[in-house]
Amino acid sequence: MSYNLLKGKRGIIFGALDENSIAWKTAERVHAEGGTFVLTNAPIAMRMGQIDALAKKTGSEIIPADATSEEDLANLVEKATEILGGKLDFVLHSIGMSVNVRKGRKYTDEKYDFTAKGWDVSALSFHKVMQTLYKADAMNEWGSIVALTYMAAQRTFPDYNDMADNKAYLESVARSFGYFYGKEKKVRVNTISQSPTPTTAGQGVKGFDGFISYAEKMSPLGNATAQDCADYTVTLFSDLTKKVTMQNLFHDGGFSNTGVSQEVIEYFSK
Amino acid sequence: MSYNLLKGKRGIIFGALDENSIAWKTAERVHAEGGTFVLTNAPIAMRMGQIDALAKKTGSEIIPADATSEEDLANLVEKATEILGGKLDFVLHSIGMSVNVRKGRKYTDEKYDFTAKGWDVSALSFHKVMQTLYKADAMNEWGSIVALTYMAAQRTFPDYNDMADNKAYLESVARSFGYFYGKEKKVRVNTISQSPTPTTAGQGVKGFDGFISYAEKMSPLGNATAQDCADYTVTLFSDLTKKVTMQNLFHDGGFSNTGVSQEVIEYFSK
Amino acid sequence: MSYNLLKGKRGIIFGALDENSIAWKTAERVHAEGGTFVLTNAPIAMRMGQIDALAKKTGSEIIPADATSEEDLANLVEKATEILGGKLDFVLHSIGMSVNVRKGRKYTDEKYDFTAKGWDVSALSFHKVMQTLYKADAMNEWGSIVALTYMAAQRTFPDYNDMADNKAYLESVARSFGYFYGKEKKVRVNTISQSPTPTTAGQGVKGFDGFISYAEKMSPLGNATAQDCADYTVTLFSDLTKKVTMQNLFHDGGFSNTGVSQEVIEYFSK
Amino acid sequence: MSYNLLKGKRGIIFGALDENSIAWKTAERVHAEGGTFVLTNAPIAMRMGQIDALAKKTGSEIIPADATSEEDLANLVEKATEILGGKLDFVLHSIGMSVNVRKGRKYTDEKYDFTAKGWDVSALSFHKVMQTLYKADAMNEWGSIVALTYMAAQRTFPDYNDMADNKAYLESVARSFGYFYGKEKKVRVNTISQSPTPTTAGQGVKGFDGFISYAEKMSPLGNATAQDCADYTVTLFSDLTKKVTMQNLFHDGGFSNTGVSQEVIEYFSK
Repeated sequence: MSYNLLKGKRGIIFGALDENSIAWKTAERVHAEGGTFVLTNAPIAMRMGQIDALAKKTGSEIIPADATSEEDLANLVEKATEILGGKLDFVLHSIGMSVNVRKGRKYTDEKYDFTAKGWDVSALSFHKVMQTLYKADAMNEWGSIVALTYMAAQRTFPDYNDMADNKAYLESVARSFGYFYGKEKKVRVNTISQSPTPTTAGQGVKGFDGFISYAEKMSPLGNATAQDCADYTVTLFSDLTKKVTMQNLFHDGGFSNTGVSQEVIEYFSK
Repeated sequence: MSYNLLKGKRGIIFGALDENSIAWKTAERVHAEGGTFVLTNAPIAMRMGQIDALAKKTGSEIIPADATSEEDLANLVEKATEILGGKLDFVLHSIGMSVNVRKGRKYTDEKYDFTAKGWDVSALSFHKVMQTLYKADAMNEWGSIVALTYMAAQRTFPDYNDMADNKAYLESVARSFGYFYGKEKKVRVNTISQSPTPTTAGQGVKGFDGFISYAEKMSPLGNATAQDCADYTVTLFSDLTKKVTMQNLFHDGGFSNTGVSQEVIEYFSK
Repeated sequence: MSYNLLKGKRGIIFGALDENSIAWKTAERVHAEGGTFVLTNAPIAMRMGQIDALAKKTGSEIIPADATSEEDLANLVEKATEILGGKLDFVLHSIGMSVNVRKGRKYTDEKYDFTAKGWDVSALSFHKVMQTLYKADAMNEWGSIVALTYMAAQRTFPDYNDMADNKAYLESVARSFGYFYGKEKKVRVNTISQSPTPTTAGQGVKGFDGFISYAEKMSPLGNATAQDCADYTVTLFSDLTKKVTMQNLFHDGGFSNTGVSQEVIEYFSK
Repeated sequence: MSYNLLKGKRGIIFGALDENSIAWKTAERVHAEGGTFVLTNAPIAMRMGQIDALAKKTGSEIIPADATSEEDLANLVEKATEILGGKLDFVLHSIGMSVNVRKGRKYTDEKYDFTAKGWDVSALSFHKVMQTLYKADAMNEWGSIVALTYMAAQRTFPDYNDMADNKAYLESVARSFGYFYGKEKKVRVNTISQSPTPTTAGQGVKGFDGFISYAEKMSPLGNATAQDCADYTVTLFSDLTKKVTMQNLFHDGGFSNTGVSQEVIEYFSK
């Protein structure tokens, strides 16, 4: 089922690795809704993934870019507007990586070079993307920028490690940049705080399966899937949500406002 | 511009008084998106308003109901499903009234009979509506219930008086009922926290014009209008937001996350 | 260990039933810190409890009052200032009761007379207490008013029933009245959102033991006890927290900002 | 007036520059309450300030440390426990600096080397301090760590620039580290979100005077001063708040929960 919600809209989608990715599902959904876009990812992620297949399926071009590089981003934005034939209406930032997590460092034993690298990739990159767009004046009025985040920015999930702090920074960037982008160019900026999602990236995290299972039992509607997230993102790119900005939007089947569920309490009631 | 987002969906819309009403704009928008519905309002509000014109324009029937009366609500739900030919997919609750405000009582000089009446109309009515729907098993799976609220539930706006407390109760009902409705029937429940809106009801509030002007200067994208709210509500009724539940969603051009704007600070900088 | 933190301060303490009560522990602690006070409770609660022993132990008088009765409250405030010899510096509101819970009604099957009664006792009573104090001009400048609440006001705990909505209303009253009481009389108003506490009242709630155990495993410092709460309340009554107002303060060993703990996740990881 | 609240307690206080500093006032207050401590600041800040006078007044030693240097912090912690004669009970982190602000770069024109430096000094330093303490096992059970923050972490204040994002990161570190420090060592970690305060550091920020004036008019109890903050911090270091952890505590005369004040609305009501 599609509605032509994004007919005539152009954008950039960051972070599609493989068909488990939220960005991948979003690209497919945006395509179905009539939007056109450029796909991008870091050169290393592109070698590991299957982004070519997605590009073919959606009739999109791929422009590699390291989202921590101002040069790469400037090139990406310039090429994307050329290829798509005009300014942009939407951008999806779906990028995150913690070197501390990958290297198995505990949160109380961070190696700060790793921390700085993870912060640059996962959090500051969102500022860099927006500053590049802003300086190039590459967004149309009422354009919509969305980044994916996770509730660890508000509450501690022990295995999420320094990604929690990175997501808190990212969400703050959405508010801070959203203020200026709104005032000056009528562009809105929001984050979607998604249920834990079994993407290829997510699956590497220690304790992830137990956590998915817990979240499923806690959420009255169950966990939101990558496909659900693609659907929701499309509404935020559409013209129906023009006055939503600087928000962090929980998309999680109700997890965030459930103190405890009946099913979980029963584990502790013997 | 419409998208057929609500094709085949049925619902009830509470609170359309005249063409300034958010509920009125929502009814028009839902109609444009292919949804069918029953309109309802309190008998007294119906005499004051122009709901007949809206019914004619949208091909809808009107069933009067006092939203504090369990009997009226049971009748409404029964008739609505009959008229519409099946279970419901969406409900809009746009009801609020403070007797203390109307009678000019200050917040520190409440008359508690007035307080109780305003609470029943503005806050408990939302529970009554949902309990009636729930007991009649009148909602389809993945149905969506939305109530309108205001940020006074989180922060004090002095002229908003006891409506602040009523809205806090209403938002809590959304979470509490949303938990059970989600678990048991896969129905989602959310509130939209809307910019101050110059509806006929809102205009009666003391200091309202000054406040609208302040909010306009504070919000990076300006205040959200009734029409903007209708658009946003449609996304929450659609199938694209199935995993959003128990949330209070700020729809306010960024007001809620703006500490102060440049324009406001300049008033205080001489 | 005591510090004379409340030397010379006078107040009223609502809600001491027996030695498990938070209000009981607070009365003892306030006494140890040099404060003097009047104890009060509803006539029926007084018959069930042992408040006389507490009065004797702390050298306090008891003035029965139904906190939903404006007459009783006016009498209480008048007598308390007489007995204590001056205006008041602190007030503790520790009152809550749901008839729906007592009668075993589910949240989706509320009897609305019960709901209204519970709201009056648990939530509106806080407004009534403050309005009475305000009209009698019975608080000293920089006085401190505290009400106890629970996190169900923010997130759903299924067995907490309509008390969740009552607590949301209560917390809103703290903000709303706190605004006016601050501006006009320099009195601060806050709520403490306490861990689940095995008081005599709390123990009646279905699923309470399981929930206490869950909360203990979730909270990095363990649940806060009634004694801990008494200690914390004393800081809010002291002169060291004069600029804290209109806040809801979580006192829960970290529960509120813990998404999940290692111990809980392990239950779901097999 | 003092209460011996911190008798026998030992700690470290970061960030006392001159007598306008919150850390300076806190040091004086902690001293008055019977606590002993080591003062520290970055070598460059020490040259600009008058920390020697504070050390003399409070009978404290000074150990210079760059809070971004793991070596300096390890040396500081080792020396402090030696000098004070045992493990620590409290730590105050009052450190913040944005190079972008100093160099006059707008938020939409950040120089990312500056951003990284400011993040390291203002945000990551808090993690470094705690990781150093944790690895050295230098805190006593029920010790208390406090960092100062600002509400720009939640809502945008345009002149606060990238410090907003740094404070969001800092507050997240408090929650994340607080989880582990609580579970494993019973140490609590909180942030105080203070009113805008006319410290020597704060005064450099563009638009600061207008903002102070606006905040004063918005806050029902007026802005909290540095002295008020010192008082409040002492309660968080004391044994009376043992179960408060992972919280961000607004200390602002009610600003954070005031949507608009009567005085502010009147500016916009002509």
